[in-house]
Amino acid sequence: MHTAPPSASAPQQPQPIYQRLAAHYRGAIQAGSLNVGDRMPSLRSLMRQHEVSLSTAMQLSRHLESEGWLEARPRSGYFVRKPLRNTLATVSEPRMDITPDPAQYVGIHGRVSDFIARGRLQMVKTNLAVARCAPELYPGEALKLATLRVLRKRPNVLVSASAPRGNPEFRAVLAKRALGIGLRLSPDDVQVTNGCIEALNLALRAVAAPGDTIAVESPTFYGLLQVLEALGMRALEIPTSPQTGISLDAMEMAMQTYDNIKAVVVVPHLQNPLGSIMPDAHKQGLVQLCERHGVALIEDDTYSELVNEAARHHVPLRAMKSWDTSGNVIYCASLHKFLTPGMRVGWMAAGRWQARVEMLKFSQTRSTEELSQLALADYMASPAYDRHLRRLRSALHVQRENTAQAIANYFPAGTRLNVPEGGLSLWVELPNKLSSRRVFDAALEQQILVTPGQMFSNTLRFDPYLRINCGWPHQQDVEQGLRRLGQIVTELVAMGPPIDPAL
Amino acid sequence: MHTAPPSASAPQQPQPIYQRLAAHYRGAIQAGSLNVGDRMPSLRSLMRQHEVSLSTAMQLSRHLESEGWLEARPRSGYFVRKPLRNTLATVSEPRMDITPDPAQYVGIHGRVSDFIARGRLQMVKTNLAVARCAPELYPGEALKLATLRVLRKRPNVLVSASAPRGNPEFRAVLAKRALGIGLRLSPDDVQVTNGCIEALNLALRAVAAPGDTIAVESPTFYGLLQVLEALGMRALEIPTSPQTGISLDAMEMAMQTYDNIKAVVVVPHLQNPLGSIMPDAHKQGLVQLCERHGVALIEDDTYSELVNEAARHHVPLRAMKSWDTSGNVIYCASLHKFLTPGMRVGWMAAGRWQARVEMLKFSQTRSTEELSQLALADYMASPAYDRHLRRLRSALHVQRENTAQAIANYFPAGTRLNVPEGGLSLWVELPNKLSSRRVFDAALEQQILVTPGQMFSNTLRFDPYLRINCGWPHQQDVEQGLRRLGQIVTELVAMGPPIDPAL
Repeated sequence: MHTAPPSASAPQQPQPIYQRLAAHYRGAIQAGSLNVGDRMPSLRSLMRQHEVSLSTAMQLSRHLESEGWLEARPRSGYFVRKPLRNTLATVSEPRMDITPDPAQYVGIHGRVSDFIARGRLQMVKTNLAVARCAPELYPGEALKLATLRVLRKRPNVLVSASAPRGNPEFRAVLAKRALGIGLRLSPDDVQVTNGCIEALNLALRAVAAPGDTIAVESPTFYGLLQVLEALGMRALEIPTSPQTGISLDAMEMAMQTYDNIKAVVVVPHLQNPLGSIMPDAHKQGLVQLCERHGVALIEDDTYSELVNEAARHHVPLRAMKSWDTSGNVIYCASLHKFLTPGMRVGWMAAGRWQARVEMLKFSQTRSTEELSQLALADYMASPAYDRHLRRLRSALHVQRENTAQAIANYFPAGTRLNVPEGGLSLWVELPNKLSSRRVFDAALEQQILVTPGQMFSNTLRFDPYLRINCGWPHQQDVEQGLRRLGQIVTELVAMGPPIDPAL
Repeated sequence: MHTAPPSASAPQQPQPIYQRLAAHYRGAIQAGSLNVGDRMPSLRSLMRQHEVSLSTAMQLSRHLESEGWLEARPRSGYFVRKPLRNTLATVSEPRMDITPDPAQYVGIHGRVSDFIARGRLQMVKTNLAVARCAPELYPGEALKLATLRVLRKRPNVLVSASAPRGNPEFRAVLAKRALGIGLRLSPDDVQVTNGCIEALNLALRAVAAPGDTIAVESPTFYGLLQVLEALGMRALEIPTSPQTGISLDAMEMAMQTYDNIKAVVVVPHLQNPLGSIMPDAHKQGLVQLCERHGVALIEDDTYSELVNEAARHHVPLRAMKSWDTSGNVIYCASLHKFLTPGMRVGWMAAGRWQARVEMLKFSQTRSTEELSQLALADYMASPAYDRHLRRLRSALHVQRENTAQAIANYFPAGTRLNVPEGGLSLWVELPNKLSSRRVFDAALEQQILVTPGQMFSNTLRFDPYLRINCGWPHQQDVEQGLRRLGQIVTELVAMGPPIDPAL
């Protein structure tokens, strides 16, 4: 993490100058100091005014152009344009007056598998469903070199058993980086896992038993709903704002209504699928609420490294666990989304359940492969890691903006959209409560894969929503896929509701 | 597998000539055709009689010497000696008249952890507790080279997601090798897991729920008891013979007595800790018994690759699942013990629970790392793999024999011992029901670590037993450790029972 909250002592990494200037001019456009159609200061005046080189001035202008804030006019320079996507309304806020109800077992795995299986039967040209980035956005070559170094230095790494808690060097690197989000952990507080999914399994098994109720955000990523179903636990879906995350009022009401809630699982940063980031006051409030009610708080922090540079500078990110004083928060994280989808490595800090989590990890999968841990420790301790993160955030920023722009261009009026401050997907609300299952079907026929809203809840509440991935560079095929998708939505909206209301 | 049962069609690998001859002469000594003190045929006559080279004749004689069947007398040649270890009685058979009782939750994890934690507090010079081989007995260099080849050929392997079911090439290699134990599997029947422990977790979760009863061998490896405790299932311990494995009579009686037995977990080959190998008739009988009673049979085949060359030739090994006609047997295996303790790779074929196991695997840890799977596929498809297995089996044979010999030399009268036909440990019955916990304590003070019998049962039935590892080359330190251990046992036996009977 290149910015540290005031309380932490991680070394500060300087941000490139052009990015600081970009944030400045972006702010000026958003604030209205620069209006649509205004001419951006020339390269020469940028150089003079900010005392930067020509190349920095050019980098700045091109960066803002790539984000959609400027357009280049031949021989005239750069002009301000407000991205079209900003004309779209944001996604509706959830109704808070619906009393939550613990979901019946609905067979979410069956529902999800059905969508996935149908996606596999078809040749897919444009995959807008996958929740990761294109391989070229990850540091594959550098991780390969790190792996080679480890194999050379540790000839016995493949033929010796590794420690169930995880490799000590790797745990030390993780603990050090965690300072960046306000967590003071000793390497011994860290338990390495086979990805965040195993961490969530262990956390849930540590604090709850089959039949118990677990509060989750609604919508939430289907992986969590599947885990709960597989563990025989009941998901209680709590209304969640696309802007500020889980509703504390609804959460408190639920805790007063149901006395068997054993845990709350929350993604505070770039919630999946909403992209919301919880304000610090909400995070702190939730930590205190859970403690007061004796409910464990499980923090799934898979995405915080994908929060935009600008947003990180505005308010340094803090994990919910940084407000935890009693060990009631279990922090879970993974490296798949922002570093290496091919290594199954996640980790957790389980507070007062640490011993129980260690026992469960030992009895579930013993240890995690040491080669991966050592290679990651090697790479993550180098300055290349922060360079990679900055590059990835900036690439995703551009990809998100381009995707949002395409949706604004091609989708019919009434479409609502959130463009979150980071991450690799967009959450789209379809007009006229159009069923995303119908969009899924029609898109699949044209070899386009999307994730329908039904996959994110045990209810059908999110049927008129789609999750669109932005992890792949926005090239012609992606633009074309989005254009066709827009046509499909337009046609289905024009067609009106189906005759059989069950469809 | 270099020998295939008649029904299978795996290619046959020729056994080295000296090993075939060694089996011949070993049989002659065991049958009494050659008696203790007899002179072994000279190198010259071996060469003439079997039409082999001098080097093969020498290899033969040295091999039998290393196993303890021959001794070299300077300038006189080799003479037959019967290993001293054969003068020890074998371990007692279990009493079958004890009606089994589903174990109460006894906190086996607490008990096991306590022993492990105490072992860690001390500097240990001679570790006779660890259940794996010395790193140099595994093909570390070859696996490293295979890993490098994969990294070169698949530049994106670390930055792409892998399939939850496992890499197809690797599953094809596993399915092909499984022919060697009589299993006809398609690669699609194979589910790759994070080691055999995850396979057992998935198998148990697929067929049973918390509160259900699972029948296990008694004694059994503590890992299984920990898994059951962690899953909230109840272990029903079935008497198990050190020679022929789980008692079918006791199993049938238990099935008639308890109607909530959901599964039986059995290690048919080289049971841990007993080392027993189930006769084929027993395997088949158990498969049929389980099917008749609607109880799932979970086969843990972690050790079959460590069965001696000679035993493999005598009766080719067959997995229990090879008699399965209804999909009622879940086959689980791992590669840690005989190939690579550093890669967390196991696999399973779950019969009629395949879909449920896939769902549980997906929701528990998603996929297993692809780099390891591809490296293993590369190595296991090469002839080096079978060469490694033969070398390892032969090294373990020598180490087991030497360890058994040392126990016969140094332990007091009344000690009983099983020397199994393969594997990496010995199961020792102490004289006069001496508590192995007292041996553990006294040995630890002298920096020797052993595994006490209490760790292999929820009961205290196996308190007068020790498991001794033979995975490390039998060098001076091991011999000295065993000598001291023998002195400790001798002293404790002489001391008589402790004053406080709780000790």
